[in-house]
Amino acid sequence: MYKSELLAQNLRQMIENEVWKPHEKLPSLREQTQLSGLSLITVLNAYQTLEAQGLVYAKNKSGFYVAERSRQKPSYNAEVSLKKAVQINSAVFHYLKSIQAEDILPFGSAFPNPELLYNQKFMQLLAQHAKRKNSYLNSDSMPPGNLALRKIIANRYILQGMPCTYDDIVITSGALEALNLSLQALTHPGDYIILQQSVFYGAWQAAERLGLQVITIPDHPQHGFDLSAFEQALKQYPIKVCWLMLNCQNPMGFTVNDHIKERIADLLHEYQVYLIEDDVYAELHFDQHKPLPMTYFDRHQRVLHCSSFSKTLGMGTRIGWVHAGQFSDAIQHLQLMSTLSASPLIQNALVDYLSHHHYEKHLRHLRRQLEKLKKKYCQFLKQNLPAMCEFDYHPSGYFLWIRLPEQCDSFKIYEELLSFKIGIAPSLLFRPEHGTQNFLRLNCSYPWNDAIEHAMDQLCCCIENSIQSMPKPSSPSG
Amino acid sequence: MYKSELLAQNLRQMIENEVWKPHEKLPSLREQTQLSGLSLITVLNAYQTLEAQGLVYAKNKSGFYVAERSRQKPSYNAEVSLKKAVQINSAVFHYLKSIQAEDILPFGSAFPNPELLYNQKFMQLLAQHAKRKNSYLNSDSMPPGNLALRKIIANRYILQGMPCTYDDIVITSGALEALNLSLQALTHPGDYIILQQSVFYGAWQAAERLGLQVITIPDHPQHGFDLSAFEQALKQYPIKVCWLMLNCQNPMGFTVNDHIKERIADLLHEYQVYLIEDDVYAELHFDQHKPLPMTYFDRHQRVLHCSSFSKTLGMGTRIGWVHAGQFSDAIQHLQLMSTLSASPLIQNALVDYLSHHHYEKHLRHLRRQLEKLKKKYCQFLKQNLPAMCEFDYHPSGYFLWIRLPEQCDSFKIYEELLSFKIGIAPSLLFRPEHGTQNFLRLNCSYPWNDAIEHAMDQLCCCIENSIQSMPKPSSPSG
Repeated sequence: MYKSELLAQNLRQMIENEVWKPHEKLPSLREQTQLSGLSLITVLNAYQTLEAQGLVYAKNKSGFYVAERSRQKPSYNAEVSLKKAVQINSAVFHYLKSIQAEDILPFGSAFPNPELLYNQKFMQLLAQHAKRKNSYLNSDSMPPGNLALRKIIANRYILQGMPCTYDDIVITSGALEALNLSLQALTHPGDYIILQQSVFYGAWQAAERLGLQVITIPDHPQHGFDLSAFEQALKQYPIKVCWLMLNCQNPMGFTVNDHIKERIADLLHEYQVYLIEDDVYAELHFDQHKPLPMTYFDRHQRVLHCSSFSKTLGMGTRIGWVHAGQFSDAIQHLQLMSTLSASPLIQNALVDYLSHHHYEKHLRHLRRQLEKLKKKYCQFLKQNLPAMCEFDYHPSGYFLWIRLPEQCDSFKIYEELLSFKIGIAPSLLFRPEHGTQNFLRLNCSYPWNDAIEHAMDQLCCCIENSIQSMPKPSSPSG
Repeated sequence: MYKSELLAQNLRQMIENEVWKPHEKLPSLREQTQLSGLSLITVLNAYQTLEAQGLVYAKNKSGFYVAERSRQKPSYNAEVSLKKAVQINSAVFHYLKSIQAEDILPFGSAFPNPELLYNQKFMQLLAQHAKRKNSYLNSDSMPPGNLALRKIIANRYILQGMPCTYDDIVITSGALEALNLSLQALTHPGDYIILQQSVFYGAWQAAERLGLQVITIPDHPQHGFDLSAFEQALKQYPIKVCWLMLNCQNPMGFTVNDHIKERIADLLHEYQVYLIEDDVYAELHFDQHKPLPMTYFDRHQRVLHCSSFSKTLGMGTRIGWVHAGQFSDAIQHLQLMSTLSASPLIQNALVDYLSHHHYEKHLRHLRRQLEKLKKKYCQFLKQNLPAMCEFDYHPSGYFLWIRLPEQCDSFKIYEELLSFKIGIAPSLLFRPEHGTQNFLRLNCSYPWNDAIEHAMDQLCCCIENSIQSMPKPSSPSG
């Protein structure tokens, strides 16, 4: 990083911390040169950077002054988009209600086919524990949750090469609570956070609820995550927290490579930013190795890692956790005020289940089934989707993210398919601030049969119709 | 209500709704007289009431103008106390951690002795359901929760004489989530809410978390609830929501009579205020009839009624609900963003359990046991507490609220008893804004035995010591 950039960054930090209040004068160029030992041109560059960002303003011959808070918000930039006072309409709510109906084919669902989950051994253990009074101890019904379960989860981090103790872990009602409590613990209303452009809608909703300013990082066509846009956003905005999904990303499906993850960890430290990592699909990799979480690359306690058993044992378990580290107390405090705890019974049954290698066996089986199903769906769609549509095969999870021609509106296709009792997830849910909505997410965890094939035919047909009705490009003039 | 008061109230509503913005002129006295048909003196009275409340200001000969928002906050009043920007310190958190330890006698616990709960029949049914995959349906894992359970809960309202349909009910993770989501749905940061002076600490914490202004209603020594202070607070402050507990109140134990409840319902309507009713102990009455919730007296959909199975079947069930009426959608929306749902397994087991009259039988047995225990504790304490201490026997629940002489600090007694491995709940937790802290709450749901008797002796002894060390009053002069 250039010296002037470093200086600009330090000054920005001080402005944010109100070392100087709005309309107060910054040190003069001469003072700053003397204090810092930097050259005049370096100092001037730094001041001009701040000016370009709207953080300071210059008065003729008198020097630089701190801008009003409201004026400190920088202008629109092509690569990162600022979404003030995020307003998610009720589209998500109505979508979730609509695909919930029992007779709707669940290609729009965020959850794997429940038939693949709810492992029988787990249910047996749950039944055994249900009859014992000491499965319901009050102490397990208080944050941070069951001690034995926290030890097992901590051990799973250790086995993947990360330092962790049970004190780092807080058990939650699913990963959604873990993510929400983490965001709440780390932010105040008005703070800036980073989200990916296409992202689990829960992140947008949490940002809305907490009154946060959202900066989005564009999706990178090759790597999934656009590192340079990320760095630029950190440079340009007073970011407090990033909420990212880098493994088996929802909705797109990619897993970011380790090189990028390493660089993200460096940037978090450099810009003193926290990362809330949503990692609920990490166990659903088809390759031999589980993708590494950001915690692995984090040397400076900048990462809060959130996950759950919802995508592997079933959403009905309602057990998630956060590897919260130093923020464990703050998160427990918030939990004590809101839901108190996850089910002590299910926590106890999980302890038993996880202690006896049942889980690893179940995961191996689950991965094989998901891989087989995903390949089947891909094969069919490769043959039957209109030629102008594209999707990538990622060796993990159970989502396909299908790109339609730009003029197609996947929300219209969603609405049309709903009348045929077929659910899909239109891109509006995942990138509400984006202009074009030509993507859709398909859940391919349901076993292939005639009804599914018929529905997939219908899907392809609907897309074909949508393409046909696209405005024809006029012939080139001249 | 006087005509001028009614007019003042209407004008206040319009100021709140920003019909007129700060520094905008209100209709002149003459205009208002003509428009309303009221006498000049009535209109003038109304304007002067608003002026006294800081809502408007008068400009010499020019009329009345809307005050700045920040100036609209009225001054301190002896009977209702305003608690701005509520700051609950971590006392509650550390208290809960301290009494959680397994070797601490749980007289400080908010929960009944778990041995009396976790009914065997319920656990059997839970075990049966645990083995069935369709106990974990995704549709039960989404707001508003299991349909059959909502129907049963709705029916329990109907049987108590209240209109209710399953659409009114949202299932939550315990009553705490129901209360929190209700408060969140009904308020914005900065809004005014009413709490009782001595109240479940979760209410203070929720207010803090949501950035609300709290007005407290003093405890009434006879009726529990001070109706005239309540009315005065409604008159004086722009109250949006009340969060009240009127049946088997925690921590004090009283149940408000029906006459007062009726009047509260009238006032809610008159002042256009919503009530969030915390009614988690309602089933633990020893008399024949269950106390009526405010929903019974509510003709204008002003009440959101929250309860749970935590105090009757065990906190480990983590199932509560809110009779949310018109706010059902708003609350579901918030739940979808935070915890998604309560455990579908436990919801399904509850449906089975509640459908077969097991619950009523369990409740009858539970009430008898609690009554017997409470009487035993009362008998002992009547004989052994120092003469300067007082408490009331209320025929419900399992709390005793003991009043010490004013100079005693129950937090010190709590700390001292903790060194003897005895937990109690000091009044600081329930009335953090109050100057004197000479009350303590005692959980008397644990079976009497030598260890308990010894601990009660220790308690009495600690209190006696505290009284002995009180500063002696100087002898009257002259």
